Amino acid sequence: MSRASLNTATVKHASLAEACEVAARAGFGAVGPWRDVVQAVGAPQAARIIADAGLRASSLCRGGFLTTADDAGVRAALDDNRLAIEEAATIGTAELVFVVGGLPGSTPGGAPSSGVDRDLVATRGRVADRIADLVPFAAEHGVRIVLEPLHPIFAADRAVISTLAQALDLAAPFAPTEVGVVVDTYHVWWDPALRSSIARAGREDRIASYQVCDWVLPLAAEPLNSRGHVGDGYVDFATITGWVRDAGYVGDVETEIFNEEIWARPPAETATTVLSRYEQHVAPHL
Amino acid sequence: MSRASLNTATVKHASLAEACEVAARAGFGAVGPWRDVVQAVGAPQAARIIADAGLRASSLCRGGFLTTADDAGVRAALDDNRLAIEEAATIGTAELVFVVGGLPGSTPGGAPSSGVDRDLVATRGRVADRIADLVPFAAEHGVRIVLEPLHPIFAADRAVISTLAQALDLAAPFAPTEVGVVVDTYHVWWDPALRSSIARAGREDRIASYQVCDWVLPLAAEPLNSRGHVGDGYVDFATITGWVRDAGYVGDVETEIFNEEIWARPPAETATTVLSRYEQHVAPHL
Repeated sequence: MSRASLNTATVKHASLAEACEVAARAGFGAVGPWRDVVQAVGAPQAARIIADAGLRASSLCRGGFLTTADDAGVRAALDDNRLAIEEAATIGTAELVFVVGGLPGSTPGGAPSSGVDRDLVATRGRVADRIADLVPFAAEHGVRIVLEPLHPIFAADRAVISTLAQALDLAAPFAPTEVGVVVDTYHVWWDPALRSSIARAGREDRIASYQVCDWVLPLAAEPLNSRGHVGDGYVDFATITGWVRDAGYVGDVETEIFNEEIWARPPAETATTVLSRYEQHVAPHL
Repeated sequence: MSRASLNTATVKHASLAEACEVAARAGFGAVGPWRDVVQAVGAPQAARIIADAGLRASSLCRGGFLTTADDAGVRAALDDNRLAIEEAATIGTAELVFVVGGLPGSTPGGAPSSGVDRDLVATRGRVADRIADLVPFAAEHGVRIVLEPLHPIFAADRAVISTLAQALDLAAPFAPTEVGVVVDTYHVWWDPALRSSIARAGREDRIASYQVCDWVLPLAAEPLNSRGHVGDGYVDFATITGWVRDAGYVGDVETEIFNEEIWARPPAETATTVLSRYEQHVAPHL
């Protein structure tokens, strides 16, 4: 069965049923759903839709947003993440991807609020505390908390985990079955320590997902949606995929692209393009 | 004398004489000229302009662009950098800042050319080779090659040095008087390893310049020109400046801002604003 997985964010305007239909028809072995499409039908029904399409769920995106300092915000974040953990277990994936959030008082893509907290060190420390809070509940449900380092372009406003090494350091106090990491080419391709960090992630048995998409320029007006089809940008997929292979990763490979132009295309066309790019640039190096 | 230095890129449309005049009047102790304003009058005259204004030259920006693989390109890059080394010596600074360039075949801010070389590892290796080529000539002239890590947003198209640790690794084969590093808050503020890398840079006696400006959002249409006045964005200047102080740095602090709106203001106004922000957010922590 194919290791290729279609992340539902790549076909943002499709329902889960539509995403599964185009993925199965194109030849994917799995889908990586986001919570919005799961919640739209409810997790039990989502599980049936994925299974009926003959697919696996390679991960659930996304928990996280753990950086707030105030008590009410912490309680709300923990509650929402417990719900995400239950959803992951229900749809049958052990891998719940966490995007941990930006500085408190940051505005996604915008200027800081007057009450912004610029203390990045303390903010990162709170992320560690919240992971510790959630691990027991996640472990009870057979779900791994999967930390996603985001490109440093997003360090202020979206995720204060910025490198794979940092994600591994945050995971270190926990068992590999409890906390893992994502290797997403878009976010980490530039890292001078990438080869050694991927090797370390493999040795520590923490690679929970390999996600691919390309770094394209110019950036979109909303940089979050600047990702491109594999092969359209600057990422060296042969080299990075080889490092992931050499680290012993044998799991699914998700293509997750945020791009307004790609979202405007018919989902079936996008699925076909994604799989073709995967077969050309990624699969030969796995 | 003030450790504050006005980088001429912050008053992009001013001549060197105008930049020095507004810097001296505002109370700066130094300027950090770019090569364009030095070459506009010639390096000997530039030296006189800076001295006559009662200022020091804290650095010269910028050499570099060392990533090409073809012989003619390598020769041209080495020739241009030898000229930059002579210019630095003539204007009386030991610190020549290097921005090392992007992937060969990349387009600054744009899509890759059909002949782009995505091999980031090999490209970074060529940078090491070119530094080795240039060190003897620079040392003869009493000029230090100062490696500037650029924010990973620029890794594809502008500079393949992306972290301070990587810059220090590239510097390691050479004496601290031969190869140094810049700590520029805009480029490194997000780095989870920043505290330890700054401490290492201090221990290894390689901090050649501390540059400040702020990470502001949203990014400008040309992300290169997204930098903001100190205090307007997300950077924690108190913490980072403290780390630089604790690393033993006692040199000049340059404010270098690329921003179309700031460039459109009168240079004297910009100089005053820059010094005021420096006194408020940086100087108390030095």
